[in-house]
Formats: sequence, structure tokens, C-alpha cells
Amino acid sequence: MSGFVHEDLPTAEVDRREELKRPLTDAVRDLVDATIRTTVDDDEVRAVHEELEALIDRLRASQLPGSAGGRYNSERRAWHWGNAVIGAHNAIAPPMTVVHDGPGRAHADLDLGAAYEGPPGLVHGGVTAMMLDHLMGETASGMQRPTFTGTLTMRYRRGTPLGPLHLEGRIDREEGRKVFVVATIADADGVTVEADGVFIEPSSGHAPRVDG
Amino acid sequence: MSGFVHEDLPTAEVDRREELKRPLTDAVRDLVDATIRTTVDDDEVRAVHEELEALIDRLRASQLPGSAGGRYNSERRAWHWGNAVIGAHNAIAPPMTVVHDGPGRAHADLDLGAAYEGPPGLVHGGVTAMMLDHLMGETASGMQRPTFTGTLTMRYRRGTPLGPLHLEGRIDREEGRKVFVVATIADADGVTVEADGVFIEPSSGHAPRVDG
Repeated sequence: MSGFVHEDLPTAEVDRREELKRPLTDAVRDLVDATIRTTVDDDEVRAVHEELEALIDRLRASQLPGSAGGRYNSERRAWHWGNAVIGAHNAIAPPMTVVHDGPGRAHADLDLGAAYEGPPGLVHGGVTAMMLDHLMGETASGMQRPTFTGTLTMRYRRGTPLGPLHLEGRIDREEGRKVFVVATIADADGVTVEADGVFIEPSSGHAPRVDG
Repeated sequence: MSGFVHEDLPTAEVDRREELKRPLTDAVRDLVDATIRTTVDDDEVRAVHEELEALIDRLRASQLPGSAGGRYNSERRAWHWGNAVIGAHNAIAPPMTVVHDGPGRAHADLDLGAAYEGPPGLVHGGVTAMMLDHLMGETASGMQRPTFTGTLTMRYRRGTPLGPLHLEGRIDREEGRKVFVVATIADADGVTVEADGVFIEPSSGHAPRVDG
């Protein structure tokens, strides 16, 4: 997987490190929501901010020099905890969990809150595009081959409400190195956004993209 | 603006509330990055998490019942602080500041860090789609009329590196209620993603979307 670095960490240790930071990440996600919605008074906003800075300093006492990147071990376990859509340690990610339903099919269930809002009460159109982009890329690659996004088209049928949502993607057809994927995002009343995309299998084996 | 609620708060007070939570939001954004990158030991991760939960409780002592939504006052000042791309109180937003360069033109400059990663070292393709979607919507509406997204197509020329980026959008043409917008995202070496979209002016005056 292009850009992924080999690191020979036993899978059990990878799993342990993944789980270690997951509760902290969930709390940061909760803090993002609380910061948007809080109406506490000015002094309390400033007091919480001051204490938060101290916590950030403690976390930064030892850190990676840059972004998390991606790694894999000799047992073919891969991890990319910083990924903006699925990263286990990224509080921006809902996170989305993609379920592969056999060859060429995948789905994901999400519950998007206040942090994903665009028009009042609705998911930001760009957020639906981001989620569809990721699901479709994983549908194309099927966790078996690298692919990168060529083109992606979204058709907005109506607003997507905040709350529980269902995404589905499937490979429509393949032509040479091109993989044609179609996908939808839906609420309880049906489809809100349709998408289709062309994903490319690199000829060289050097893929610019496998997971977003 | 559809979905926006009238609240007769003087503009000076709107500005004051907007600025009050901005430093806290910046710190939360910093915390998202620190959580991805920290390599402090297990006990410290758990200790920071515990203190963070206490801060969340303090913010939630008084809060909005749901998402932030959008509001406007009698002086035509509008605010939507929870917006996923531009919201001043949303730590998920970079935040992006859209600059309107006269009729039918807009641009934005961004610096995307570890939280926006997809493939190692590169911006998540879905994040570029999200930013373009927002810029193009604002280009179409020009802060003067409501529009909603009909279709949006992205063409990925190459990976977009994390770091400083420049977005540009312009209205290509209009046909009746349809506004055709083209846009690009570029790094120092040139364009990485091109996009075009069709935005619709609602006939009824009830717009499902003005800002995302």
C-alpha cells in the first residue's frame, strides 16, 4: 500500500495501542460537540480553556513529528489511526466503520451529530460527499487491491437530516483498470444523495491511494 | 435563509459571543491534533482522559438542546457557528474563510494538518470534496441569494499534500435557475483537484441550503 511504512510490531501490540487511545479520542469527539453547544458563562468558558491547554501540553510532551500516516506489519495487519473518515484516533472522524458484504459490495451505518451540520438541522453537503468518497474507495479496492479516485459525481436529491444514516456502495462494472462504483446515502425515508465514481487500479503497483 | 431562525440580538453582542468561544474552539482543534500524534505512556493517556471528562461535564452544565443551527438578526447579521466547514465554534472545521472577490468569484486559503489525512501525507480525497463543495456553494450564492447543490463532480489529478492549499471558484454561466460553478484546489505546484457543480436557485424562495 503506497505511502504505508512497514513496522514490525506484533498484531497484539498494534491492537493494544489502537484500543488505548480510543476512549480518549471518543472524549475529544464529545468535547467538539460540547464546545459547539455550550452556553456556560464567559468566565467558565475561559477557565475550561485554560485547563484544556494544560492537557494539550501533557499530550504533546511526546508525539509523532507529523501526521500519523499508515503502517503495516508482517502479519498483514495495517493501521492508519489518523484517517479523517475512519481513523480510530481522529476525533474528526465520526468514525465510520465500513463493512464489506462480499465481492464488490460494502455498507456503513453512521449517526451524525451537531459537528457535521451545514444548513440548520441537515448534514453539510460536503460531509455527505466525504463519507461517500471514502465508502466508494473501499468498495472499489475491497481491501484486496490498491485503487485511487479518478472522478466522483454526487447528485443531491434532498437535504440529509442529522441523525442515523445508511450508506451503500457497489461495483457497477469494470473496464480494464477502471472500476465503476455507485453508492447512496439514505435516512429512514430513503435516499438523499446518489453518487458514482471511477476508481483506477494503478498499473505500476504504486498506488497513491488505498484508504481515502 | 431557509432554516435560519430570527433572533434579535444586537450585532455587537453577536460578535462578542462569536469571539468568546473562538479561543476555546482553537484549543479543541489543537487537542484533536495532539490526540492523533501523542505517544505518551498508557497511564498518562488515561489520566488526561479522566481530566478531559470533567471539562466536558463543565461545558455541558448549560447547553443548546441540539445542533447550533443558524440565526440572523434585524441588521442582517447571520451566524452559523456550528457549520462543519466554516463554523467559528466547530473544531472539525479548519475553519475555512471564504473571500468573495466580486460577482461570481471566491477563494479560500487553508492549511490542513494531521486531522485531514487520507493516504499517508496527503489530504483525504473526501476532505478536498468537502472544502470544494462549500466554496462552490458560496460562490453560487454570492451571499446574496439562496442556492442548493444539484450535482457536483470532482476530477482528481493527483494527491493533495497536507499543508498550505489554495481554493478558487467562479460562476461559469447561468441558465434560468441553474448556476454552473467551476473550482479548483491547488498546492504550490498547481492544481490537484478540479470540480464543477450545478447549483439551483429555488423558485419558491424556500432554500434548503445557503451555506453547506
